[in-house]
Amino acid sequence: MLDPKHRRARGLAIYKKMGWDTNPDLKALDPELWRLTTEFVFGEVWSRPGLSLRERELVTLAVLITLGTEGMDLHLRHAGKLGITDDEIREVIYQAMYYAGQPRGLFAMKRLKGVIAERKRTRRARR
Amino acid sequence: MLDPKHRRARGLAIYKKMGWDTNPDLKALDPELWRLTTEFVFGEVWSRPGLSLRERELVTLAVLITLGTEGMDLHLRHAGKLGITDDEIREVIYQAMYYAGQPRGLFAMKRLKGVIAERKRTRRARR
Amino acid sequence: MLDPKHRRARGLAIYKKMGWDTNPDLKALDPELWRLTTEFVFGEVWSRPGLSLRERELVTLAVLITLGTEGMDLHLRHAGKLGITDDEIREVIYQAMYYAGQPRGLFAMKRLKGVIAERKRTRRARR
Amino acid sequence: MLDPKHRRARGLAIYKKMGWDTNPDLKALDPELWRLTTEFVFGEVWSRPGLSLRERELVTLAVLITLGTEGMDLHLRHAGKLGITDDEIREVIYQAMYYAGQPRGLFAMKRLKGVIAERKRTRRARR
Amino acid sequence: MLDPKHRRARGLAIYKKMGWDTNPDLKALDPELWRLTTEFVFGEVWSRPGLSLRERELVTLAVLITLGTEGMDLHLRHAGKLGITDDEIREVIYQAMYYAGQPRGLFAMKRLKGVIAERKRTRRARR
Amino acid sequence: MLDPKHRRARGLAIYKKMGWDTNPDLKALDPELWRLTTEFVFGEVWSRPGLSLRERELVTLAVLITLGTEGMDLHLRHAGKLGITDDEIREVIYQAMYYAGQPRGLFAMKRLKGVIAERKRTRRARR
Repeated sequence: MLDPKHRRARGLAIYKKMGWDTNPDLKALDPELWRLTTEFVFGEVWSRPGLSLRERELVTLAVLITLGTEGMDLHLRHAGKLGITDDEIREVIYQAMYYAGQPRGLFAMKRLKGVIAERKRTRRARR
Repeated sequence: MLDPKHRRARGLAIYKKMGWDTNPDLKALDPELWRLTTEFVFGEVWSRPGLSLRERELVTLAVLITLGTEGMDLHLRHAGKLGITDDEIREVIYQAMYYAGQPRGLFAMKRLKGVIAERKRTRRARR
Repeated sequence: MLDPKHRRARGLAIYKKMGWDTNPDLKALDPELWRLTTEFVFGEVWSRPGLSLRERELVTLAVLITLGTEGMDLHLRHAGKLGITDDEIREVIYQAMYYAGQPRGLFAMKRLKGVIAERKRTRRARR
Repeated sequence: MLDPKHRRARGLAIYKKMGWDTNPDLKALDPELWRLTTEFVFGEVWSRPGLSLRERELVTLAVLITLGTEGMDLHLRHAGKLGITDDEIREVIYQAMYYAGQPRGLFAMKRLKGVIAERKRTRRARR
Repeated sequence: MLDPKHRRARGLAIYKKMGWDTNPDLKALDPELWRLTTEFVFGEVWSRPGLSLRERELVTLAVLITLGTEGMDLHLRHAGKLGITDDEIREVIYQAMYYAGQPRGLFAMKRLKGVIAERKRTRRARR
Repeated sequence: MLDPKHRRARGLAIYKKMGWDTNPDLKALDPELWRLTTEFVFGEVWSRPGLSLRERELVTLAVLITLGTEGMDLHLRHAGKLGITDDEIREVIYQAMYYAGQPRGLFAMKRLKGVIAERKRTRRARR
């Protein structure tokens, strides 16, 4: 069992490994939702041994694709940090699609396209 | 692109690696549903390179947990063949649960418990 | 616009055409749920012109398959009264499945199999 | 059983009957998602006898309304080609709504309104 | 049992208590969807004794958060009329989130933020 | 902010107020799922001020009805402890049903009936 005192520190450490910084957008949206998510979802669940961060992200992407939620964008954006390429995300979408339904695959592919386009714009702007 | 002529053979080969034999229960339920699933879901999607079978099963389990469907039992029963232990399935459940909702985690854990109990009964009967 | 005074009578007339008698199981479960369903869902919506009862049942089956609910059994049992054969229900399942996800198709096919088996038992008992 | 060699040709033929041309937006989004959808969903499922294309579209609309997905727009836009009028789509929405929930009906009605407005703009621009 | 003749009047009375005026946006979207919603959902269900309007709104918000639908905005906007503060809506979101999944909580929180921002803009414009 | 050190004690205190004892069935199913649920869902979320336990249960019931999950039984069984009568649960079902869909209402009503029947059997056995 993980030490409950260090939940927040562990959550922040996971954010860092994921390339999410301190997850500032969620903090700005609602500090309490940020605290609950950081301490619990990241400080407890994501911090567990037993599955790699890469595998935890594959599982999470599959759930988010099934729910059909915009909330997947943050994950699509940073999955590369956990060693998941855009082509691998495509495979997750094809795989999830036959179980979750074709429209969920379609929606996820559009979000992925949006995230890739956004990344290109950012890179171009930086040059 | 995989050769479309060999879809069924590829699907059957995947079933074998998964420990599903020829997926006979689905064939008995509805031969056409079996054919569509074998040729397409397994002969096309599961057969793709780009993700390991272990990772495809993790993704599939996550979708099935999110849907909260009894259909996950076949996967829970044979995940070990793809190198996924019961403890790793538990981790998938904990991970999926915060995104799919606690009742989906509870439901999946009950199915897993049922599958483990069934396995023990079968082993005892064989002795 | 349909006359609001005759909602209940219209609902009962639809039940009769569907072969549901007065929908007594729902009445026994909860008289108020029965009243709300009869007057509104059947006395208003099912009673509208613009789609045939056969088409309304196809639409309803598709929604119920997507939700993955046991509540579809009553519809599977009596769809024949509206001219929908078991083979046509199978087609609805195959069609809905790629949009709602394969596990929803699997679940619906099992319910259909159960309804067909139940019908055979009833016929045998009557002889 | 339909000849598996001609899946793609059959899928393209269905697209044509539906007024979707070759479904170019999906192809542009992701060629592999287009191939899987064309060969399988359209070349296999939509191509089956047993239900008319009109009835397959009614079933599909009902699933898409239940899922509450933007993906329904393409179907709303072209349903007329399969003989489904806007008023009939409204009836599908009213019918699906009591089973899928009022918010799914509300969402679908807004998408339908959007599609009708878009059609008017296109017509005006052509004059 | 409520008198069926007065369904519409009762529905309109509930709208007024909720600060929805006559729900004109829904009427403009589709008069028949407005009629069905007003007479049935509001004239029958919301009009029932047995739960306060505040409690009916809490229940409704929880369903809408779970469905993850934009349709929640009208409720978020006017919940104050039934004595539900923005802070209480936040509590509903935290509470619903562990059962409906974190992404549904995230989505609802963003809608609430949007509604609060919109309210501020309206107030500023009025000065 | 609640003191993170006392999460488990707070969770157990909530269980007691709800008449759930220590939630032993969940503990027997999976000790880690029990710990995560007790410390976080009950020790954090249910323990918050801002809504009464009665209101938190109304919200929770609405989510569970929408998900259509068997997991609602424990809540249906003990809602009385938080001052929610069976008739009030019926009102929650009617209210949630028009938003979550009639089949979710039907499913919940059957679970409620099952819980009421079980309670009667227990009382009779005790005499």
